[in-house]
Amino acid sequence: MKKFMNTAETMVAESIEGFVRAHEEFVAFGVERKCIRRRHLVPGKVAIISGGGAGHEPMHIGFVGRGMLDAACVGHIFTSPTPSQIVSAIEETDTGAGCLLVVKNYDGDVMNFEIAAEMAAGQHRIEMVLACDDIETVRAGDGRGRRGVAGTVITERLLGAAAERGASLAELKAIGDSLSPRIRSMGVALTGVTVPHTQRPTFTLGSSEIEMGVGIHGEPGYSRQPFANADTIVRRLCEAIVDDIKQATDKGLLLVNGLGGTPPAELYLAYNIVRDFLCEHDLRIERSLVGTYATSLDMQGLSVTLAFLSDEEFSLWDSPISTAALRWGC
Amino acid sequence: MKKFMNTAETMVAESIEGFVRAHEEFVAFGVERKCIRRRHLVPGKVAIISGGGAGHEPMHIGFVGRGMLDAACVGHIFTSPTPSQIVSAIEETDTGAGCLLVVKNYDGDVMNFEIAAEMAAGQHRIEMVLACDDIETVRAGDGRGRRGVAGTVITERLLGAAAERGASLAELKAIGDSLSPRIRSMGVALTGVTVPHTQRPTFTLGSSEIEMGVGIHGEPGYSRQPFANADTIVRRLCEAIVDDIKQATDKGLLLVNGLGGTPPAELYLAYNIVRDFLCEHDLRIERSLVGTYATSLDMQGLSVTLAFLSDEEFSLWDSPISTAALRWGC
Repeated sequence: MKKFMNTAETMVAESIEGFVRAHEEFVAFGVERKCIRRRHLVPGKVAIISGGGAGHEPMHIGFVGRGMLDAACVGHIFTSPTPSQIVSAIEETDTGAGCLLVVKNYDGDVMNFEIAAEMAAGQHRIEMVLACDDIETVRAGDGRGRRGVAGTVITERLLGAAAERGASLAELKAIGDSLSPRIRSMGVALTGVTVPHTQRPTFTLGSSEIEMGVGIHGEPGYSRQPFANADTIVRRLCEAIVDDIKQATDKGLLLVNGLGGTPPAELYLAYNIVRDFLCEHDLRIERSLVGTYATSLDMQGLSVTLAFLSDEEFSLWDSPISTAALRWGC
Repeated sequence: MKKFMNTAETMVAESIEGFVRAHEEFVAFGVERKCIRRRHLVPGKVAIISGGGAGHEPMHIGFVGRGMLDAACVGHIFTSPTPSQIVSAIEETDTGAGCLLVVKNYDGDVMNFEIAAEMAAGQHRIEMVLACDDIETVRAGDGRGRRGVAGTVITERLLGAAAERGASLAELKAIGDSLSPRIRSMGVALTGVTVPHTQRPTFTLGSSEIEMGVGIHGEPGYSRQPFANADTIVRRLCEAIVDDIKQATDKGLLLVNGLGGTPPAELYLAYNIVRDFLCEHDLRIERSLVGTYATSLDMQGLSVTLAFLSDEEFSLWDSPISTAALRWGC
């Protein structure tokens, strides 16, 4: 395991410190470094707060700024932030209109965000939206629902844009809940990942194996399959997504996301395959995002996310955004 | 070698097709797909044209658009585009004010861009600027000068911004030449890369070795060293850069660039180390860029680039840009 790191104990703190120093026009540390917050808050705007384990960068810290998140809380690698961190983020960013917590659907994250919401409920109006776009986890049938993976980026962006336009807490909660069945993702890994603290790979793949349906915490997927060409692999992801998604409109947003170790050239090649597949199924893509947005450490792999959006939601997507990872219109 | 690809013969064409489909608001294919060009040219503006082998994405195609390049020509992997491609890009983008060719300093690229410039000279006014920011190649002492690596991003951005503001061809040539001694880069690899056509790694590293001073074509560096912690590795890069660069101002632009297989979290950790080092040397960083901009296929590695710029050049850096890989202010 060769990584650019000093010690497993300090790597998250050092990386986040670098992030804040690199982007101080957008972000700042919160009190006691419990969260990364937007440098300039907008009084009267609902605060959008997210967070999760480290190891998924730029998610969520790279989305803090105008038009997306007001704060992000970062836990240890693949581990939820603590309730105390989340309460601190609420206290720092609620300017009177309440807070919307956007939480990826994992037991630990949901528990800690719920505890924080209860702790802060006396002083703050709080709602929660679950990001649950992964299609693999439903097949597992364990009743815990879908994981939140790269589709979380779309949910957080649309909610952040709506908040910036003045949507109320109740309106934002409704938008978030309505997005859920219209966003679906699936991932594939060519390699497993090694968590620095344990020095053990979460799963190991042979030189001619791939893992279909992986999550972003090194969870194995639903099926180990023989390595194949990109057409074969990517079309399997597309078929599973199109089978599962609720096609509410005929216009999609397509995200091809790298899991950490996959270069842009391969992501664009995969994107091209997805576009061919969607054309064959008479599905139009109105907006695209191709890059490394929700990672699983340095995993070689990618995920495909499709979201069916309304014209109003595309307009939210296009509105000005200034964050480290997404920036346009201002 | 597991990559997302179909065949070695088609991978570049498929990837570029995906790129153009994903970003059609900025870019379009040129005639016969010989180049990727800016969708909306600006009459009377000097055209900025670059190019090089594939395998370095998003360089250069990701920089085509307002405020940077008017066209990029892409060759086979790690292979210069042909003179015919470059001539075609000149013909499509010269709106009367001439063309500036920005060429990374490699024998093949320089030769083909020079041939193209000669072929087009009867009809077009043409100047050329060499990108030569790598410090390793001078140590080699083979007389071919410094390679162009990630610092090329900075050169192309500043020239593109100056052209957008109306600089003449002669002024742009002067800006490009003056930047050269003030931009320096050095890279390190934790793994080699395998070129799909040959199926052979360009060099092989053991599990406890690193390669210092690598280029972006899988060239080995000047020294194989034992794997070490990030502080040790990154500080060695910084020392070499600070020893070599011409410190024209006291304000720097810092680029920490991933070589293809390195996740954002590790790049930010490295960035933090560079900032500490530069603070200790009383060097101020005014602008930062951290991400994957100039790759060597899926190499696990990174490079550090430092550029000393004037206030006027920082203002060019900040001016509006709309490309796939860099976007702000519009």
